[in-house]
Amino acid sequence: MTASPYAALETRFARLGAIGEALGVLHWDAATNMPDGGAQSRGEQLATLKVIVHEGLTDPALTDLLAGAEGQNDLDPWQRANIAEMRRTVAHATAVPADLVAARSRACSEGEMVWRKARAASDFAAMLPALRTILGLTREVASAKAAAFGMTPYDALLDGYEPGGGTATIDRLFGELASVLPGMIDAALARQEKRGAPLPPAGPFAIAAQRALGLEMMKRLGFDFAHGRLDISAHPFTGGTAQDVRITTRYDEADFRQALMGVLHETGHALYELGLPGAWARQPVGEARGMSLHESQSLLIEMQVCRGREFMNFAAPLIRDAFGGGGPAWETENLYRLGTRVARSFIRVDADELTYPAHVMLRYRLERALIAGDLDLVDLPREWNRGMRELIGVVPPDDARGCLQDIHWYDGAFGYFPTYTLGAMSAAQLFQAAKAADPAILSGIAAGDFTPLLAWLRANVHGKASSRSTDQIMIEATGRALETAPYLAHLRARYLED
Amino acid sequence: MTASPYAALETRFARLGAIGEALGVLHWDAATNMPDGGAQSRGEQLATLKVIVHEGLTDPALTDLLAGAEGQNDLDPWQRANIAEMRRTVAHATAVPADLVAARSRACSEGEMVWRKARAASDFAAMLPALRTILGLTREVASAKAAAFGMTPYDALLDGYEPGGGTATIDRLFGELASVLPGMIDAALARQEKRGAPLPPAGPFAIAAQRALGLEMMKRLGFDFAHGRLDISAHPFTGGTAQDVRITTRYDEADFRQALMGVLHETGHALYELGLPGAWARQPVGEARGMSLHESQSLLIEMQVCRGREFMNFAAPLIRDAFGGGGPAWETENLYRLGTRVARSFIRVDADELTYPAHVMLRYRLERALIAGDLDLVDLPREWNRGMRELIGVVPPDDARGCLQDIHWYDGAFGYFPTYTLGAMSAAQLFQAAKAADPAILSGIAAGDFTPLLAWLRANVHGKASSRSTDQIMIEATGRALETAPYLAHLRARYLED
Repeated sequence: MTASPYAALETRFARLGAIGEALGVLHWDAATNMPDGGAQSRGEQLATLKVIVHEGLTDPALTDLLAGAEGQNDLDPWQRANIAEMRRTVAHATAVPADLVAARSRACSEGEMVWRKARAASDFAAMLPALRTILGLTREVASAKAAAFGMTPYDALLDGYEPGGGTATIDRLFGELASVLPGMIDAALARQEKRGAPLPPAGPFAIAAQRALGLEMMKRLGFDFAHGRLDISAHPFTGGTAQDVRITTRYDEADFRQALMGVLHETGHALYELGLPGAWARQPVGEARGMSLHESQSLLIEMQVCRGREFMNFAAPLIRDAFGGGGPAWETENLYRLGTRVARSFIRVDADELTYPAHVMLRYRLERALIAGDLDLVDLPREWNRGMRELIGVVPPDDARGCLQDIHWYDGAFGYFPTYTLGAMSAAQLFQAAKAADPAILSGIAAGDFTPLLAWLRANVHGKASSRSTDQIMIEATGRALETAPYLAHLRARYLED
Repeated sequence: MTASPYAALETRFARLGAIGEALGVLHWDAATNMPDGGAQSRGEQLATLKVIVHEGLTDPALTDLLAGAEGQNDLDPWQRANIAEMRRTVAHATAVPADLVAARSRACSEGEMVWRKARAASDFAAMLPALRTILGLTREVASAKAAAFGMTPYDALLDGYEPGGGTATIDRLFGELASVLPGMIDAALARQEKRGAPLPPAGPFAIAAQRALGLEMMKRLGFDFAHGRLDISAHPFTGGTAQDVRITTRYDEADFRQALMGVLHETGHALYELGLPGAWARQPVGEARGMSLHESQSLLIEMQVCRGREFMNFAAPLIRDAFGGGGPAWETENLYRLGTRVARSFIRVDADELTYPAHVMLRYRLERALIAGDLDLVDLPREWNRGMRELIGVVPPDDARGCLQDIHWYDGAFGYFPTYTLGAMSAAQLFQAAKAADPAILSGIAAGDFTPLLAWLRANVHGKASSRSTDQIMIEATGRALETAPYLAHLRARYLED
């Protein structure tokens, strides 16, 4: 008996999915364990595997198999959605020639190694040649996809991270935010000023104690250590595979809150991966939906839940125990105030919830200009600093705290940044709906029981994987497509009314 | 301009080499970092990549390319040797169907996970079903290769680890050892008895201090940390890739010598990998020659060098410093006696130099019988214990210290064990030649300067990679093919005359 076209496609994509998982482990290892001298050969390994995936996705035999599978009348909705995701993946792959895939992969691997040193030395000039190569190859990819999809080059890149997303929607939503947020920041800072600053707990905070606290919080939130790990990397991320989720953080002995909030953030990402349906592992429909929903899960945990009063009521005693802390700086209210402190600052990943969107809008503006060819890389540091002054009101003293701070562009990720703020908005909208759907969620959080919350997320987001569009998932979960109102209401309540 | 057949082959094999490197990293990760729940998907990843390599090696287009390349008259000796190695690799691959490769890979991945638990619980019955599957699939592979190569199934497996090796040579060499070693063990034990036991340094020995000492020794021996790491695993090994060599050890707080000697052993393996010619990276001719030469490098460092008097004169003060040790147990002579102590024992990896070959001969005998179908797995524990009594004179109290102790069979590695003792013999013969060639080698070791030794090994072993056969490498380096005399002379000098 010959396999049906659909069954043949599942077999082919299972193989590509396994290679994708191998890439996930190799990327994680490069960021956590790999010595510098391994970079060149790791670059070869990654490029080779990416080319093999690319060849698999551009195999002409797929055309007939996809058409045949679409003509099958014995498929269920998930299988149909799987075919649609296969088509999407194939479209992205066929738009780009294999040698360009390989060249870009190698350039990005090399770029990441150069970036580590350039950022440490705050030396943008040292970064420039590698970045020029990466941007050039990325613009080639963007043009090729733009021609194939009939959209702008930037939209074509964005579609790779956020399927169905587009600058038209982003511009509208970001425009609504931009008209309100600057005033909210001013007002929040004025309120804060009157109230006086919260007290910083005195360190140093031993890394072993910080790690133990992070692991305890992960466990409480539902992270399954039979299927994942916590490690260290320069730039925290969630990697590995859905059955083996590797999250990372970095520790600062002077400030335990950076690592802790980072762990909580990545745990949100990890819970999404761990909640994907195992029956669809290594199939396109079984993957997380897109980057805005992925970021919504990390920010729902970090911002909506863990910076809220309910969570702090539960967490403050654990935090005090972890470091043997006592006195006014360790009181629950003070820790809550520290977690919701607003400040105009240089570093995106350390930014507070209210000023964070401005960091994203700056990057969104700059990367669109870079991809469009309207901004030359030589001018990037200057334009970065100009944008910082305009949007946030501070200017970084060096490029390490300026345009070199994020790994994204140096690793080839252009079109990714707007998903952070789309994710923040989605998180607010989802958490609002979750609380309305089950009152046990909020009381559970206050008691350190995250089971009701996780159950709602599994049913409404994680378990749906890529069986529906982002819009559909949002509508089914919250009754509406993504909008700014729940996000702004959340920010108003926390920063202007609490 | 079309690429020449040889150039086309290099491109194809570079790609397969990069996948092989990826497999090296994924295997390392599975042994060091992977949580249990990641095993199933890791199994899929490994099996998928192995099948892709297998497909690449069995591509019918290779037949013409290999013939064409062999007809080129513009190639240098390394390129010619590269073609010969390609042929060898292709012959091994084409002998075995792809589905068998995939099934065996999955079974071995699963077997390793089952073994970890079965060994911990000393439960051979729990291991039996998985081992039966692995052995069955391995026997299928062996039969297929035997038919293709015109040799016995066991010789066909052996050839995969030890190109050009064969049971005829091994039987002859092992026969020579077996006629001498039992008497030497008796004599050495009698001498030891008269002399009295060396004193064991008192622990506990903090793991951090053990690790620091291991790292220091690695550095002294010439390990390049820009191209490698030291980590922890249940079964110490050398993995990763030639540009990123990952060695592992395991720590016992009660006995620092186990981890230290393990690190020195793996460092010997690592120096071989690090010394392979970078210009031939990811090509068949650029790989280490075979397992007996690989083991010769680890044993040359561990046994010939680091258990010798010269090394201990240099190392003893460092060891004392590492643990703050003082008094008779920490004196150089006592530490030397500890490192050359002979005992009839259960565990191969902890065995002394003199009884070690008996452990290998037992496994060689048993795995030949298993592959030939002359021994059923149900009887393995009984036959193991019977062989231990006969060859070593002790019987393990449980299977954890018996037939479950080594990962090899449970990971599908049948035909590997004899290379340990071939390696020990090669190490003695090579070290004898090295000392004769350059007197600075021995005086260097006594002073903690391993540069002369490493230079000789680079020139005579490491740098030759697979450009010559094992026999040729031995003859060029020592004037003779492998023989037992230098090994027996070394054992006699150290254990009966010193």
